[in-house]
Parts: sequence; structure tokens; C-alpha cells
Amino acid sequence: MSGFASKAAIVGIGQTEFSKNSGRSPLQLAAEASLAALDDAGLKPADVDGMVLFTVEDNEEGDLLNTLGIPGLSWAARVGLGGGGSAGAVFQAAAAIASGAAETVLIFRAFNERSESRFGQASSKPLSSYGWIGTGFNYLVWALPFGVMTPAAMISMANLPYMNKYGVTNEDFGHYVVTAREYAATNPAAWYHGRPITIEDHQASKWIVEPVVRLLDCCQESDGGAAIVLTSAARARDLKQRPAIVRGGAFDVRPSHTALGLAAREHLVAERLYKSAGLGPKDMSLAMLYDAFTPEVFTQTEAFGLCKPGEAKDFYRGGEARITGSMPINTNGGLIGEAYIHGMNQITEAVRQIRGTAANQVASVENVLVSSGSSAHILGRD
Amino acid sequence: MSGFASKAAIVGIGQTEFSKNSGRSPLQLAAEASLAALDDAGLKPADVDGMVLFTVEDNEEGDLLNTLGIPGLSWAARVGLGGGGSAGAVFQAAAAIASGAAETVLIFRAFNERSESRFGQASSKPLSSYGWIGTGFNYLVWALPFGVMTPAAMISMANLPYMNKYGVTNEDFGHYVVTAREYAATNPAAWYHGRPITIEDHQASKWIVEPVVRLLDCCQESDGGAAIVLTSAARARDLKQRPAIVRGGAFDVRPSHTALGLAAREHLVAERLYKSAGLGPKDMSLAMLYDAFTPEVFTQTEAFGLCKPGEAKDFYRGGEARITGSMPINTNGGLIGEAYIHGMNQITEAVRQIRGTAANQVASVENVLVSSGSSAHILGRD
Repeated sequence: MSGFASKAAIVGIGQTEFSKNSGRSPLQLAAEASLAALDDAGLKPADVDGMVLFTVEDNEEGDLLNTLGIPGLSWAARVGLGGGGSAGAVFQAAAAIASGAAETVLIFRAFNERSESRFGQASSKPLSSYGWIGTGFNYLVWALPFGVMTPAAMISMANLPYMNKYGVTNEDFGHYVVTAREYAATNPAAWYHGRPITIEDHQASKWIVEPVVRLLDCCQESDGGAAIVLTSAARARDLKQRPAIVRGGAFDVRPSHTALGLAAREHLVAERLYKSAGLGPKDMSLAMLYDAFTPEVFTQTEAFGLCKPGEAKDFYRGGEARITGSMPINTNGGLIGEAYIHGMNQITEAVRQIRGTAANQVASVENVLVSSGSSAHILGRD
Repeated sequence: MSGFASKAAIVGIGQTEFSKNSGRSPLQLAAEASLAALDDAGLKPADVDGMVLFTVEDNEEGDLLNTLGIPGLSWAARVGLGGGGSAGAVFQAAAAIASGAAETVLIFRAFNERSESRFGQASSKPLSSYGWIGTGFNYLVWALPFGVMTPAAMISMANLPYMNKYGVTNEDFGHYVVTAREYAATNPAAWYHGRPITIEDHQASKWIVEPVVRLLDCCQESDGGAAIVLTSAARARDLKQRPAIVRGGAFDVRPSHTALGLAAREHLVAERLYKSAGLGPKDMSLAMLYDAFTPEVFTQTEAFGLCKPGEAKDFYRGGEARITGSMPINTNGGLIGEAYIHGMNQITEAVRQIRGTAANQVASVENVLVSSGSSAHILGRD
């Protein structure tokens, strides 16, 4: 186990409503989510002395200090890889707390991704401006002239080798989507609350990148914010909520020329993660996997050992990801069914599952795997 | 003492030549400095598994992985506050190593700040784009219409209250510059090697912001790169060089509306720093202070307890910062005399002093204070 294992815990979670038009600024969304997370923990803004933000976050640390009335921070860091770094932000905060660099760390992500800037569309902004996100995708620059210009196209191209290797079809991916939308249908916070779909609906949705992803394979573009608060495991036990202990965490940053096939990175993250926690896939009660696009869910399911290599299609088709299955996946509906808050809403759901307060609660939760592909952590019941 | 104190060490340092026109790309400079630091440590690129970069660094993590042949990283973070975060980058790396998140961390900074983009000039780029640097300076937005448009003007305005409080004059600042240029004159790596100045030269240089700073009170605009490599203190003892143990470290991030008077931040950093290390100013053999502009040197000298409040002018006029004085300061010539590599060349000099290999070597060095104002660390002999 790593030195930071089980030394820190998530003690507060907060989120705004998830919408297509929030009607207010990203700073307002960040402040609302952060205050909600602090209130949930029974903490005050003045208790915060550390912050981890995404390199792509537009709200500055100083903006939040001013807005919330946090006097100052003794530690702050930015994590890259876009949403792929979301699970790793928790790892960074836990490591900082374990080392004594900070006592109470706030992490948030807030944007108007639908009503202001749409991530899903082609952009002339260089990928390097996203802060290490280029590490995974810069090789695709060579494919730009051939139309690989959107995240959907990039992820599709990166995952074609996986589909070819195991004979995976788009309909296979559809079975994950049906499950995710089932969860969303019974989750009042989800954008797709009350709106389940069938596999026929999925197969009737338009191609975005044939033969990989259809419209319903893509996460939403959402407006909203989500925040979490961490402190030491010892202090967590004196606070309001049941702590979600950070059992382990891992990151992987690869150079671009070896990045073709994101699955290789996920395998490395999985190996480091389980080693850091001294736990394995069998110890997980459920998993929250980054589902910006369905192929990523399949490769993560296999990389983290939740099923055997090449068997994700059978896993999802067989209903193993359902609440009645062997390993429930994305019980909030995921980024596809609930909202796309860059992975942060997968973490808040994992905490609810540990607490026993999720809309789609899994019985007897001990450990939850949270993966955003390029980074991951495990939350455990104390 | 904090949990990370004395758990990590700087084991390698590297730098390019410092010039006004490097004739090559920032990536080339970063790669040269990084390879030099690894070679100095007796390590290979494949040994690196962590990286801390400035939020303002243009070279991406992935670019360096590709260029140097580093297979991948298990941990990476970005630190903000511009050059003010340089000393804190070491603190971040040490905390990561102490927590087990990474084993061998590379930190570098490389740019063509003179021949490509000149930091010293007014910019229409919003300060928030520098990644938490706005935290210290955003309040100055209100002063923009009155001509406070350059770093020199911002620092001058922020330090006028200090000058007024203690009756400090620009000539007082000049005595620091004369000392720094003495050190630079005998340091072959310094841009001002062989070119000392007198107090009359200083007073004859043109005003940049009257009555605070003249031309010779301003750091250089430099092209170049500098890099350092850290690993655990235990592993450091098996490597080529005498380790520079990271005894402690501290950061401070303040909201903008309380930032007027940067000295208040420096006092907080000093307090946290000494507490984290279990050491005090009397334990320091010398100090490397961030001298982008001379007023900052005065406030840091006082904040870190190297002299009494209000007595920096006597400290520098009395020659205490000379190699023969009570507390040598910036023995490489500082950012004013050697080069402005955003504070990184202050760290490499501190390591040389610990090793006993500095051009202007202080006798019997035990501990070196490295401050970049908003962050700091202490390096100690093993």
C-alpha cells in the first residue's frame, strides 16, 4: 500500500442542478456547489486550506476565495488530462493531506458546457492548451485533415483497434447505454430522469462516428457544478457524514506517440491503483466509470478487472452492470444519463453509495472504484 | 514538523546558458536543462515518474516525455503564482514523494523570455490566464487605467506602503543591487559576469516607476532553462551527489482583495515554512530570495526574520548580504545579476551551496532558505 492509502476521506459533496442552460455564471455554479459540499460536511469556508482544480477550469482559485470568504490556502495544485484527471484530483488531495501539506481540500468543477462553450464540437483551440490533455490526444493531430476533429471522433478512432480485436459492435455498446438510462430514469438529479430507452431506441439514433458511436453513445453537454471536500481520515470521523475513505489512487501520463489505444493506459492505472490500495477488483461493490463515450466504458471495465479481456460485451449484454448484477456500474446514470460534469458527478455518486443515500442504492457497499480512465481512486467505508 | 519534512531531496540540477537570444526553442531548452539535471544525478529519463510544472509553462508534460524518452508518469501537478510558485514547486514534489505518489520528480522552467515574449512589458492578456497568479494581482485591475500595466509598476505600487512606513528610499534598494552584481561579477554563469556596478551607477540608471524602482532594480529578461530532480531522501544517499534535503516548505494563496501589501503573504509563508521544518532564521547559512524587483528582496528579508522589521535598508547598506556578512543573499547574483529563469536558478544555486560547488561559496553551509515570496522551502545538508 502507498503512504497515502486510507489517510484521507471525502467528507462533503455538493452539486447544482444539471441543465442545458443554467442561467448563471460558472463562478456562481462553482460557489453554489462548493458551499453545498462544505455545508454537507458541517464545515465553513474558513476551514478550507487547500484546493485542487483542473488545468481546464476557468474559475480561478482566487475567485473562489473571494466569493466564498476563504481567507487563504496553504496548498493548491492543478491537475490535467481534462475529465480524465477527475478521479486523480482526489488522489492528489489525499496525497497532500497525507503528507501534511493541507488539512481540508476543496475540489470543484463548474461550467456552462451546453449554453456557453460546447466541448463536443470541433475546436480550433490547440489541445495543448488543455494542460497535459494533449498527452493523450496530440497524435490525432495527424488525423485532423481527415475529419477527426471532435472528442467523439478522437475516442472512436482510438477505440477501433479494441472493437476489431474482440468483434465488438455498436449494438454491444448499446446495452451499456440502456442500463445507464435505466439508472438515470430513477435518479431525480439526472437530466434523463423518467426517460429510459430500449436497445431499439439506441440503434435508431443517428451515427456520430460510424461504426463506433451513435448519438446515444455520447455523454451530454451539461451546465452545472459539482464539488467535494476532503480532510484527514482521523478528522473525518468527527464530522457530520459517514466518511468515504480514499483507499488508494493512481494517475498515468503517457507521451503522445504511444497513446494509440487508450486501453493500455487504463491497464497501467488499474495496476497502480490496486497496488496503492492493497485491494483488487473482487473487493469492489460497484464501479463509477468515465463514460464520455461508450467504448471507454468497455475498455475500463476490462482494464480494472471487472470482467475478463474481451468480455465487456457479454458483461453489459448479460445485465451484470444492473443493480441486480454482479457489479453495478454508474448507478447515477453516468455522464451519459445524469450529466457531464467532467467526471466530478461520478465521485459524488460514489460517496452517496458509501453513505447509503444513493437514488439507486447498492446493498452493503464496502468499496467503490472511481475511474476516469487516465486516473482512478477507490473510496471505502470506514 | 510536517509529515513531508526531510523525506525528499534534490539530487540533480541542470541549466542551459543564460542569454538574451538562445537561438533555439523553449522545448529544446527544457530538454537540455532536464537531461543535464538527470545526468548530474546519475539518473536516466526512464527513472522519472513525476513532474511539477508551472501553470504558465508552455512546454507540456507530454512534450518532454516524448523528447526525453520518459515512458510515462504516475503523478504530475501544476503550480501557479508564476515565479512566486517556484520555491513551492519543490514543496509540492517533496510532499508527493513523501506520500508515495511519486519516486523521482522532475521540475523545469524554460523560455525565451527576451527573444520571444517579454514578461516585462504591458500585456493585454488577462492575469487570470496565468493560473492563480491573479490571486495576488487582480486587485490592480482597478489601477490599469492609471498606467499600472507592467510587473514593475504592479510590484512598485504594492510596495509603496512598505517604503512609506519605514522611510525606505530607492538608494536603499540600490545597496542590494550592488551586492547582487558583485556576486554576478564573479559567477561565470551570470549574464553580468565581470560587470559589477557602484551605487552611483545604480542611482544614474533611469526611473522605471518613480520613486520605487530604476532600471537596475529590475530583474533581467532572459532566455534559458533550469531543471531539478528530486527523489526520496533514502534513495538520494545512494546517488552521485551530496543530497540537498528538503527540510520544509510552504505556500500561500490569498484572495485578491486582501493582497495589497505582498509582505503580509510573505510573513504567512515564513511562519508556515519554519514550522514545517522545525527550524528558524538563525539556522540558515544563507538565503536565496526572489528578486524580480528590489522591493521584494527587502520585504522577504524582513518577513523571513533575516533582519528586524524596517531594518532591511540597514542590513543591505551594512553589507550583511555579502559573502563576508552575517547572512549572504543571492550568491549567484540573483534574478537581477545572473538571469531571470522565474526563480528556478535560485534553487539550483541553493543546491550548489549545499554541495560546496558554488562560484561564490559560503563556508560551512548547513541550511539554505529559498523564497519566492508566495512560497518557500529550506534545503539542508544531510
